Amino acid sequence: MYSSIDHQWMGEALAEAQKALYLSNPNPRVGCVIVKDGQIIGRGFTQRVGGPHAEIQALSDAKLKGFDPKGSTIYVTLEPCNHTGRTPPCVDALLTAKPAKVIVAMVDPNPLVAGKGLGRLKAAGIEVQCGLMESEAQILNCGFISRMTRGLPWVRLKIAASLDGKTALPNGHSQWITGSLARADGHHWRAQACAIVTGVGTVKEDNPSLNVREVETHRQPWRIIIDSKLETPLAAKILNNPSESGVMIVCANLNGSAVQEKANLLKSRGVEVLTMANEFGKVDLPKLFAYLAQERHMNEIHVEAGFKLNGSMLSEDCVDELLLYYAPFFMGEGIGMANISPLDSLQSKQDWKMIDQSMLGSDIRLRLIKSK
Amino acid sequence: MYSSIDHQWMGEALAEAQKALYLSNPNPRVGCVIVKDGQIIGRGFTQRVGGPHAEIQALSDAKLKGFDPKGSTIYVTLEPCNHTGRTPPCVDALLTAKPAKVIVAMVDPNPLVAGKGLGRLKAAGIEVQCGLMESEAQILNCGFISRMTRGLPWVRLKIAASLDGKTALPNGHSQWITGSLARADGHHWRAQACAIVTGVGTVKEDNPSLNVREVETHRQPWRIIIDSKLETPLAAKILNNPSESGVMIVCANLNGSAVQEKANLLKSRGVEVLTMANEFGKVDLPKLFAYLAQERHMNEIHVEAGFKLNGSMLSEDCVDELLLYYAPFFMGEGIGMANISPLDSLQSKQDWKMIDQSMLGSDIRLRLIKSK
Repeated sequence: MYSSIDHQWMGEALAEAQKALYLSNPNPRVGCVIVKDGQIIGRGFTQRVGGPHAEIQALSDAKLKGFDPKGSTIYVTLEPCNHTGRTPPCVDALLTAKPAKVIVAMVDPNPLVAGKGLGRLKAAGIEVQCGLMESEAQILNCGFISRMTRGLPWVRLKIAASLDGKTALPNGHSQWITGSLARADGHHWRAQACAIVTGVGTVKEDNPSLNVREVETHRQPWRIIIDSKLETPLAAKILNNPSESGVMIVCANLNGSAVQEKANLLKSRGVEVLTMANEFGKVDLPKLFAYLAQERHMNEIHVEAGFKLNGSMLSEDCVDELLLYYAPFFMGEGIGMANISPLDSLQSKQDWKMIDQSMLGSDIRLRLIKSK
Repeated sequence: MYSSIDHQWMGEALAEAQKALYLSNPNPRVGCVIVKDGQIIGRGFTQRVGGPHAEIQALSDAKLKGFDPKGSTIYVTLEPCNHTGRTPPCVDALLTAKPAKVIVAMVDPNPLVAGKGLGRLKAAGIEVQCGLMESEAQILNCGFISRMTRGLPWVRLKIAASLDGKTALPNGHSQWITGSLARADGHHWRAQACAIVTGVGTVKEDNPSLNVREVETHRQPWRIIIDSKLETPLAAKILNNPSESGVMIVCANLNGSAVQEKANLLKSRGVEVLTMANEFGKVDLPKLFAYLAQERHMNEIHVEAGFKLNGSMLSEDCVDELLLYYAPFFMGEGIGMANISPLDSLQSKQDWKMIDQSMLGSDIRLRLIKSK
């Protein structure tokens, strides 16, 4: 159905989409190329939220270079939108441009709109094909797809450990377990998330900034602290420059005047303070993630926490992907990776599925997703 | 210096050597092909100890097929021996065969004999080249090289663990952490060892047979139990069929008449009982491994033990290679990989170097050697 030249052009469109990886949240990463007479006459990718989508960028690019897209073939990695959001529908712009053919990698994952954009193009007599390099396009937008189809973000849990699964010395020291390449890789994953989540324990012990530093980015993800009793120190680095990205503290309650006062002080400094408790008086993690997807439009969440919160995340089934870095040494005594309840037997274990293993300097990175 | 056809024939010789992997201990794994008029006229590999070496096998093979090796080129993965051991020197047989050329992958690692075999061939007017595909030949004989150059075996420590570095549930259950492919792979490594070493803790808790089952082999490795106080139960499976392979128990002392009596009973059943104590009243592991190499001619040792002995092995610097299998789940509470003393700081960690990572079903196997 598709020629090798089709694959080549869609590959170019995917490469465009890749450029939106750190940029377009909460919009999906989409790339587009316009091909006419065997050459690309325009290319583009989704800009920052509120800015133009990939198709509009590509059409502008073609126009700027003096090309007319009429009669062209347009390759786009996601079905063009047919609704007015922060920008007008891309389908309208395509109808105006009058291409002969539109090839898309995947339909809009939102079941309410899926196919409608393609339908309007077809109705206008444009030839439409869908499904070319679909899985590559899906991988780029695991978070957006998750939010649209499940009402949940794609949650990635990062842990760096020794070969024997220790994340810190008994005294809490953990700088550095892995080498510089692995740490830089961690920032790559931070950069593509809508938010970085940690626990108050990590804030108190390590005082991390939890922003993106080692890769270049034009936006910083939200920083979210799970902090049942609002114990985050006012001097914590993570609270710096809340306007840069947004900082949120999620507690279980705000009972007591001292806690209320602290919450008000934090709010006056631009920190958002939320309460979301479960029946055990802890932060209700599943509810929080549903809220972050449905109300705050967050696609991918990157979690860097410690033994306790890692354990809760796993036990409460809030993790979609494990991002594990192992450094090549044994620590012996130290703090473990995740505080989960002992298994009754090895038959009751929850299996994960390895999807990637990569060397980063002398460390190894494993990525796993839930095993069906 | 070497042509691609040389590489091809030496590749064939290495493939022959590979066939000796489970067989030739304590002799090195050596392969040989004899090439004349652009074809292989004879091939062979080292047989069981006492049987013919690779060169003799290849010459016999040529003769059997009616070929004369005179004027041929002989490819052999290790320098032909020039001394009478259990068999006559291979160099004599080669001189009789009168090849035009002998190409070897590596010299004899024994510094006392290295080069002397090649020297005699040269002196007889045979063209000799050395070093073709040397590293491939070395990898096949890491244990033999270690014994010849260091007076120590190559010690491989196998551990199977969960992602969070647990090897057994708190109740000791460890069957099964990894899947069937990883377990079969473990038997491949057992099969190539001269001995499989474990601790009395593992014998008492898991009662393993510690023989080779999942791969086909004509010999079983020695089974060696580190057992300071001679606590190995008389009914332990590991003591079965001592004549099949040899079973050795290494204690720290045999003080007391009950222990003496048990030792005598074990000996009467064909089990070898050794004492080798360090100043702490434990088995002297470095001394034991030196003994196994120097007095018992053991090349590769495969260790499958538990938390305590793994820790001692690592702390006493007795491990050359780590063979780690990780299954894709978190265990939470459980028994750790190795009991080593807490690090003072992360700067004092002992780094390893990853040399291989392979998926085996849903598990991952990592191999690491000491970082220089």
